[in-house]
Amino acid sequence: AADNLRRVREKKPLIHNITNYVVMNYTANALLACGASPVMAHAAEEVEEMVSFAGALVLNIGTLTPQWVEAMLRAGKRANAVNVPIILDPVGSGATRLRTESAKRLTRELSMAVVRGNASEVLSLAKKEARTKGVDSVHSVDEAEGAALALATDLKTTLAITGKVDLITDGKRIIRVHNGHEMMSRVTGTGCTATVIIGAFLAVDPDAVHAAATALAYFGLAGEKAASQAKASGAKRLVLSHISARYADASMLLQQAKKVFPNSILAEDFMELELPLNE
Amino acid sequence: AADNLRRVREKKPLIHNITNYVVMNYTANALLACGASPVMAHAAEEVEEMVSFAGALVLNIGTLTPQWVEAMLRAGKRANAVNVPIILDPVGSGATRLRTESAKRLTRELSMAVVRGNASEVLSLAKKEARTKGVDSVHSVDEAEGAALALATDLKTTLAITGKVDLITDGKRIIRVHNGHEMMSRVTGTGCTATVIIGAFLAVDPDAVHAAATALAYFGLAGEKAASQAKASGAKRLVLSHISARYADASMLLQQAKKVFPNSILAEDFMELELPLNE
Amino acid sequence: AADNLRRVREKKPLIHNITNYVVMNYTANALLACGASPVMAHAAEEVEEMVSFAGALVLNIGTLTPQWVEAMLRAGKRANAVNVPIILDPVGSGATRLRTESAKRLTRELSMAVVRGNASEVLSLAKKEARTKGVDSVHSVDEAEGAALALATDLKTTLAITGKVDLITDGKRIIRVHNGHEMMSRVTGTGCTATVIIGAFLAVDPDAVHAAATALAYFGLAGEKAASQAKASGAKRLVLSHISARYADASMLLQQAKKVFPNSILAEDFMELELPLNE
Repeated sequence: AADNLRRVREKKPLIHNITNYVVMNYTANALLACGASPVMAHAAEEVEEMVSFAGALVLNIGTLTPQWVEAMLRAGKRANAVNVPIILDPVGSGATRLRTESAKRLTRELSMAVVRGNASEVLSLAKKEARTKGVDSVHSVDEAEGAALALATDLKTTLAITGKVDLITDGKRIIRVHNGHEMMSRVTGTGCTATVIIGAFLAVDPDAVHAAATALAYFGLAGEKAASQAKASGAKRLVLSHISARYADASMLLQQAKKVFPNSILAEDFMELELPLNE
Repeated sequence: AADNLRRVREKKPLIHNITNYVVMNYTANALLACGASPVMAHAAEEVEEMVSFAGALVLNIGTLTPQWVEAMLRAGKRANAVNVPIILDPVGSGATRLRTESAKRLTRELSMAVVRGNASEVLSLAKKEARTKGVDSVHSVDEAEGAALALATDLKTTLAITGKVDLITDGKRIIRVHNGHEMMSRVTGTGCTATVIIGAFLAVDPDAVHAAATALAYFGLAGEKAASQAKASGAKRLVLSHISARYADASMLLQQAKKVFPNSILAEDFMELELPLNE
Repeated sequence: AADNLRRVREKKPLIHNITNYVVMNYTANALLACGASPVMAHAAEEVEEMVSFAGALVLNIGTLTPQWVEAMLRAGKRANAVNVPIILDPVGSGATRLRTESAKRLTRELSMAVVRGNASEVLSLAKKEARTKGVDSVHSVDEAEGAALALATDLKTTLAITGKVDLITDGKRIIRVHNGHEMMSRVTGTGCTATVIIGAFLAVDPDAVHAAATALAYFGLAGEKAASQAKASGAKRLVLSHISARYADASMLLQQAKKVFPNSILAEDFMELELPLNE
């Protein structure tokens, strides 16, 4: 995680987002915080030109319309042509026909480096459909494992299924990332933010499984679980980093962490993230 | 308020929002904070399907276009057909013809459970128009009372007019909620947030007047006024809750509250809200 | 700066924004914090009516489409007809043809009071194009000075080029504002926020150069640099103000300021901003 984070901060890759209205501000700040350079651009007239400068393309169907899906396809085809990795976040796929069909069409017509979603969203991309309640997951990550391996092979992509435990697989390799997500499910856009961080890491790491796993490890290392891991690993000091300097989570995180692991401090800089990962 | 809040947290109703760009993130977080499950979806191709899973439908014309109004009508007609309560926030109605006519059309073609706005916005829905300055109110809640009673009867809906004092009426009953709004008028989207909280409460409470009053009481119990009420009511301890864990308001609120009522603490959980309401 | 800020707080001018999705919430809060009344409205059907009530019109092409540009032109022509000052933020101009051509068209067909951007964005409006990397600048403010003087004269407007040092010129006068921007480049929408503050000041100050310079001085007076200036100027006390009450920056800013200048406090009210400007 530390290596990819360092590379993102050195290269400052442009991450082109065609994403939903709800999270645009939040994910832009998350990309800035990890060192990348975000741009939001959805006009059919400019997406092909924009994506050609980009280090990665993020497609997120959270507030989709058919017109936005067309722009995603245009941007995606150019991205595939010029070898810019694409990450898809199929928000709410399985909940409505428009979402399921749009997500399936995007995975069929484009070559995705990574698809990141909760278990229900990702499973809805398989032939046998799953039912999603709005945009929140009704499947556990464990239930998804078997289906995920088959689906990753079928779609020739890497799947990153996030939940209490994150599961990353390309159909051959499987990586689980155990991270603290309890608070995260109470803030909108945390899934979408995980997606853009993977996008940033994809821009500097050609191994999609490794990029996704290190991005999720970086993203999830916050709060109580991070503290527990630090304790378990025998670390002498826990350095907490937070995604965006604009939000007040930090002090709350620190307080929680101190309960579990007294020697916790807040990071001034995201580079100092040196917690052992349990890959 | 505590009962409805508990029910929202138990049922986690899906709240379908067709709302404005400015507040999407803020209101999604407010809904998550009170225990509901928000979804933003505006494509004509999916709104009917989405609303059929929902506990309530929130329509907000803050950044409307004629196309979005069509989607609102489609979603609203389905909501009426399947008995999903609708709440309308006529942002800026009275300021431009497009807003006034769209809001009137929505109240005419759909059966609304609640209409929530400031006095100018709500009064603009009557035949005799009021003038709104942009999206901020130029009428006091008091001036609006007589007109509100008549309008609620005419539209066969519950009106929730918010201001220094909130007024809720279905044309027969009148409830006033006295809450602290001074700081709130300095943050964008607080009105829209009040609207979505009413939406969440409507999903668990069939009495629209009661749902709106308890939602506004829950929403308004923050800061200085809450402290004053606690003092007046002889409470022994004031538990401050805040809408979103992401924002830093809490410490500022606590500081203000302590000036008025020294025994104030911050709530760790939103369930602990046990302030007496002055209904 | 204090005079214009006082006038904004007295007059509470309506600021009409046709802007990008990413910053709508942030800039609305910034306008409320400085005392103005923000409205976001982009429908072609209402922009002419809305702008006629406004104190200033803000045009920002951050997430443009050709349809939004048409709405900007409609609003802008009416604004020019009724003497409402316009400020343009050509986000990402130079990065794609759509952005460059749209920004050029807006400056050609409308009379702008101020154009605010980074050096690359503003220089891209000249006949000899500059290359922009996404929405982040690749030119320094210094490199831009000569070109800026010529461009301001050519476009008959005031240019406000922001960076480490801000440069304001109408082709005759040049003002530099030295402010603390290090943290700001890590938060999305700070440029767009500078733009809306200029918009608010334009609503109360007919001298565009003065309005832009005082707005940027007000906006930039935060954190470490503010502390340094207070120290250098022999001030006895530094009063830190922050743009939005919703964000947690304040305590962090205070901490940083105290390192440089121990007698720092947080402002309760934005009116107390009395730091000497180095104009």
